[in-house]
Amino acid sequence: MIIVMKPNAKKSSIQEVLHIIEKNGLEAHLSDGKEVTIIGVVGDKNKLKEQNLEVFEDVDKVMEVTESYKLSNRKFHPKSSVIKVGNTTIGGDEFVIMSGPCAVENEEQVIETARSIQASGAQILRGGAYKPRTSPYSFQGLEEEGLKIMRKAGDETGLSIVCEVTSLEAIESASKYVDMLQIGARNMQNFYLLKEAGKTGLPILLKRGLSATIDEWLNASEYIMAEGNPNVVLCERGIRTFETATRNTLDISAVPVIKEKSHLPIIVDPSHATGIRKYVAPLSKSAVAAGADGLMIETHPNPAIALSDGPQSLTLPEFDRLCKELKPYIELTGKKF
Amino acid sequence: MIIVMKPNAKKSSIQEVLHIIEKNGLEAHLSDGKEVTIIGVVGDKNKLKEQNLEVFEDVDKVMEVTESYKLSNRKFHPKSSVIKVGNTTIGGDEFVIMSGPCAVENEEQVIETARSIQASGAQILRGGAYKPRTSPYSFQGLEEEGLKIMRKAGDETGLSIVCEVTSLEAIESASKYVDMLQIGARNMQNFYLLKEAGKTGLPILLKRGLSATIDEWLNASEYIMAEGNPNVVLCERGIRTFETATRNTLDISAVPVIKEKSHLPIIVDPSHATGIRKYVAPLSKSAVAAGADGLMIETHPNPAIALSDGPQSLTLPEFDRLCKELKPYIELTGKKF
Amino acid sequence: MIIVMKPNAKKSSIQEVLHIIEKNGLEAHLSDGKEVTIIGVVGDKNKLKEQNLEVFEDVDKVMEVTESYKLSNRKFHPKSSVIKVGNTTIGGDEFVIMSGPCAVENEEQVIETARSIQASGAQILRGGAYKPRTSPYSFQGLEEEGLKIMRKAGDETGLSIVCEVTSLEAIESASKYVDMLQIGARNMQNFYLLKEAGKTGLPILLKRGLSATIDEWLNASEYIMAEGNPNVVLCERGIRTFETATRNTLDISAVPVIKEKSHLPIIVDPSHATGIRKYVAPLSKSAVAAGADGLMIETHPNPAIALSDGPQSLTLPEFDRLCKELKPYIELTGKKF
Amino acid sequence: MIIVMKPNAKKSSIQEVLHIIEKNGLEAHLSDGKEVTIIGVVGDKNKLKEQNLEVFEDVDKVMEVTESYKLSNRKFHPKSSVIKVGNTTIGGDEFVIMSGPCAVENEEQVIETARSIQASGAQILRGGAYKPRTSPYSFQGLEEEGLKIMRKAGDETGLSIVCEVTSLEAIESASKYVDMLQIGARNMQNFYLLKEAGKTGLPILLKRGLSATIDEWLNASEYIMAEGNPNVVLCERGIRTFETATRNTLDISAVPVIKEKSHLPIIVDPSHATGIRKYVAPLSKSAVAAGADGLMIETHPNPAIALSDGPQSLTLPEFDRLCKELKPYIELTGKKF
Repeated sequence: MIIVMKPNAKKSSIQEVLHIIEKNGLEAHLSDGKEVTIIGVVGDKNKLKEQNLEVFEDVDKVMEVTESYKLSNRKFHPKSSVIKVGNTTIGGDEFVIMSGPCAVENEEQVIETARSIQASGAQILRGGAYKPRTSPYSFQGLEEEGLKIMRKAGDETGLSIVCEVTSLEAIESASKYVDMLQIGARNMQNFYLLKEAGKTGLPILLKRGLSATIDEWLNASEYIMAEGNPNVVLCERGIRTFETATRNTLDISAVPVIKEKSHLPIIVDPSHATGIRKYVAPLSKSAVAAGADGLMIETHPNPAIALSDGPQSLTLPEFDRLCKELKPYIELTGKKF
Repeated sequence: MIIVMKPNAKKSSIQEVLHIIEKNGLEAHLSDGKEVTIIGVVGDKNKLKEQNLEVFEDVDKVMEVTESYKLSNRKFHPKSSVIKVGNTTIGGDEFVIMSGPCAVENEEQVIETARSIQASGAQILRGGAYKPRTSPYSFQGLEEEGLKIMRKAGDETGLSIVCEVTSLEAIESASKYVDMLQIGARNMQNFYLLKEAGKTGLPILLKRGLSATIDEWLNASEYIMAEGNPNVVLCERGIRTFETATRNTLDISAVPVIKEKSHLPIIVDPSHATGIRKYVAPLSKSAVAAGADGLMIETHPNPAIALSDGPQSLTLPEFDRLCKELKPYIELTGKKF
Repeated sequence: MIIVMKPNAKKSSIQEVLHIIEKNGLEAHLSDGKEVTIIGVVGDKNKLKEQNLEVFEDVDKVMEVTESYKLSNRKFHPKSSVIKVGNTTIGGDEFVIMSGPCAVENEEQVIETARSIQASGAQILRGGAYKPRTSPYSFQGLEEEGLKIMRKAGDETGLSIVCEVTSLEAIESASKYVDMLQIGARNMQNFYLLKEAGKTGLPILLKRGLSATIDEWLNASEYIMAEGNPNVVLCERGIRTFETATRNTLDISAVPVIKEKSHLPIIVDPSHATGIRKYVAPLSKSAVAAGADGLMIETHPNPAIALSDGPQSLTLPEFDRLCKELKPYIELTGKKF
Repeated sequence: MIIVMKPNAKKSSIQEVLHIIEKNGLEAHLSDGKEVTIIGVVGDKNKLKEQNLEVFEDVDKVMEVTESYKLSNRKFHPKSSVIKVGNTTIGGDEFVIMSGPCAVENEEQVIETARSIQASGAQILRGGAYKPRTSPYSFQGLEEEGLKIMRKAGDETGLSIVCEVTSLEAIESASKYVDMLQIGARNMQNFYLLKEAGKTGLPILLKRGLSATIDEWLNASEYIMAEGNPNVVLCERGIRTFETATRNTLDISAVPVIKEKSHLPIIVDPSHATGIRKYVAPLSKSAVAAGADGLMIETHPNPAIALSDGPQSLTLPEFDRLCKELKPYIELTGKKF
């Protein structure tokens, strides 16, 4: 931690800050510059967390130099994590594709989708049973009924199952049926939910919030991991910017940035990032080439009548063609599919 | 709803869209332009919600012309709502100031603050018992213990009490103690929480999400109101932008925009919007002049040792001076304080 | 300047950085922390500007602690600047309102507007003769012909004149006619234009770029001032964010932030910030209360046929009413109008 | 164009709007809905450009359904453009890499770079002679001297040459030396500069502005093309968002969006987008896979002493390795390199 004093800070103000630091068992290093005085704080900065040095007289600003996330930080865990989900692993040699409908509508839709995506090479079936929708008048999901359909589709095909949870109730239900819990973008800083999801020990797919910085995202993963659950997979799904040509802006740089800052796997969801079906294929290739560990792609047997997010869903034959096109890109990155 | 066809759309594609519209019991109006054909849809657009017209051949885009929020929409409820909170009302003649610490730390802190802000003219005491913090290693709140302290401070001073809730559990506890529930920015689209808060019937202070559009914010209020609870007060607390000189960017325009689009009251929280104590006074005046119905301002007997958000908290004498400065501005707007 | 080394940085890497700093005549202060080593650099950091320390081995990041703008920085010029424009001064006791049409269309329009706004109390007439328009097919301005009309209106009414310039040619023409040059938002980082405008010695109204941070804005003013021209007035006119309910988002916090960081005057343009006429009045009051030194408000005798930005222009009677409403707010801030 | 009336709009208001439309020689189609009345306007909307329908009584909003750019619009020019630059073509079968230093510093640096990148396969040499820098105290470029060095390096190696221009003067000088003019991000809406660059007839590399929407970017290209110069190449170089882990956010979706909306070629500049050397390789691959027609990558013989943007520059061996890694990705997309 570095404390920058105002120009012409009084000696007594500097002394007061030094005093506080030392009183809390830390070491202070003074750099007395031409324009400003800087104080470096050495030691465990948690000892200072009951002090707000910003409000002391003549303090200009307090700058952090180390990250607040530890368990998800590659600095302290240099080796990349490989997360087991059902029979699949994410973050290792295998490139993992999760696919399925935005919302579970009925058994026929899900089974048809599951069989088809499995034949195309996908390893995990996605499908929403609890749907967070902007308007209360939109379809909200089949809840437990939907989870049962997902489980059945998983059992019939051998695909692993991932479903979003939006409440403690949903976590309790879903834990009985699924192989992986998803925390959606809107709940990325629902810290209560993160802790409860963490306690299940199940692998967690943590989507990035629409306006979450990468730092905040890794802090959110820390909430799960601090419950003793190291099985977190991150999912970049677009951030909110001024551009309206796509629903959100896919932050493709997040892939190499996460790979550098964290040991956790990262996958990309181009369907939600763009909201438009025709951009899903080029952005899927782009994510592979950027080094992602997997993809989440929405599919529907008949997008024209999908109850949620139809305009961004691929048909099953489109998905099959995309998988074939992705294969050589995946192999170039050294992964298998 | 308007459907814009692609240039050179085939006649058969146009016919198909017209057919879908009419099959669903709606009327279609065709405008056959030089460059493009436009189809206006007349009738209850909910009848079309199982159809994704965007994915039909030769459809360029589908544009909504009416808002999806109804209960919070001024178009259908022209008269401004006045919400009763304890002995106070928000949205009427009275200008309401909520103040208190970011986090409840102990009884002494809260009682001292409550007495002081009441003497300064504030009507509502705020204080967090459940704190959503970016890092799991930061102070997380006293929970029910904190609620009891708040209630005691309310009883001693006659101030009404508002506390943030972050889970169903917290709602159940808080409902026993507080006069108003707060939904924080990070939970604005935690729809499960919105519904549960709505069911209590208590007045709800709904903070705007960091990256929520005004349209999404009003849709979030709709989740509460659709549970039969019309007692919603909106709180603008800054949005996330590229500017880093302040913690967030106070969207002061939201005040007149909400006043136009909705009948719900709106207050402003300059403390969280800027994160910096010295900007709270000018932005409070600014919010009054823009037409806000109230303010939420953080105060602490000793900001230097506040467990949360100290750098943005006013001292109690600073708050008192600000209330005095605000009074003539408030009176210019025609409200009382 | 502070250099943060990576955790486990090699001793030799640290030595190399220290060597570079000292070789360039600066002093290095080492803080050897538990997690990371920090090096504080003391002395004139310009001596290091031919070295990119970020690219050295084991360097994690380089953090600046002082601003790169000097002439506009309040740290080095504590007294607020008062800028003379014609017979008016901005930044002193007087609250200054600039008004007029977005684009000069013809003499009648401008003279009618000038007479009316002067009667309402405005001190400066604005009007565009060179219009930067998003589409090349929109009206581009009357150029020198427009400047002559503006000058005539100024001479007839005694109002001072401000016009936007978009090229060296425009600066040369405008310098013959106007009292103040305006650099528009789209040209805020057209550094060539800033230098040329600076050389004229005329007062410059520098609008904030749509995506400019406050730091970049003050650096842009530095380009003008470095030409020996201290007469800069800043104008906040909205920044680009995700919100679409208004054309841009008025960053009202910029007013107190600029007042703290710089000695230059700042005015606010609510017309361009919102793009919608009905929001101009509340945001004008808001800007006054936040501490602005003036306002720029678009007016037109008949907004329905304005060639540019009609939807955001006030009619002349609306402007007159607004001036009357603003007067008591202005007086509360201690300024005269 | 569609005009949405307010709910309960008076009949007389609707009549007035219809009258204006028809008086201007256009056709109006009325859709009289349950909630609102919509008026579709058929015909050449330019006939209405002197009317601001938004300001009429009971008009809620005016929505555009067609784009204002025409020459760059794929709707009217379905075939992809192939732009000739020196001996190279962009937008055809060849994948084009532009490389070189941010700023021209001296002949030795440029010649060494040119020889090396040519050996690696690059076709175009970049190098700034006129540098737009945030601070006036940073290195501003060698101007004409720099252009001569670039020309010499081009002649010695056979590489084509691209240089940024920032003023009419710079355009006049550069036109004597270079094969392609670059308009930088900060000048993307310097419409005066766009027109002057257009007049030269030289191919223009048009970088996207930091906060420019894709629609505004295509309108900027329209300024160049309206001067009779169809030789425009677009360059995505990152947009400004809230995320600070990278200098800007590379909007990779812009590649497929531009490919759909326009016939112009698009290249990607990962160096400026991220500002960090280690992210250049993954984002280059990502851009290739997304379908870009080329890349612009900064290189320097010794990034540690680069006068501009050293931290984002690759060394020459790093660039060589990257070119080798890119080749199989490029071939997968069907292009040659």
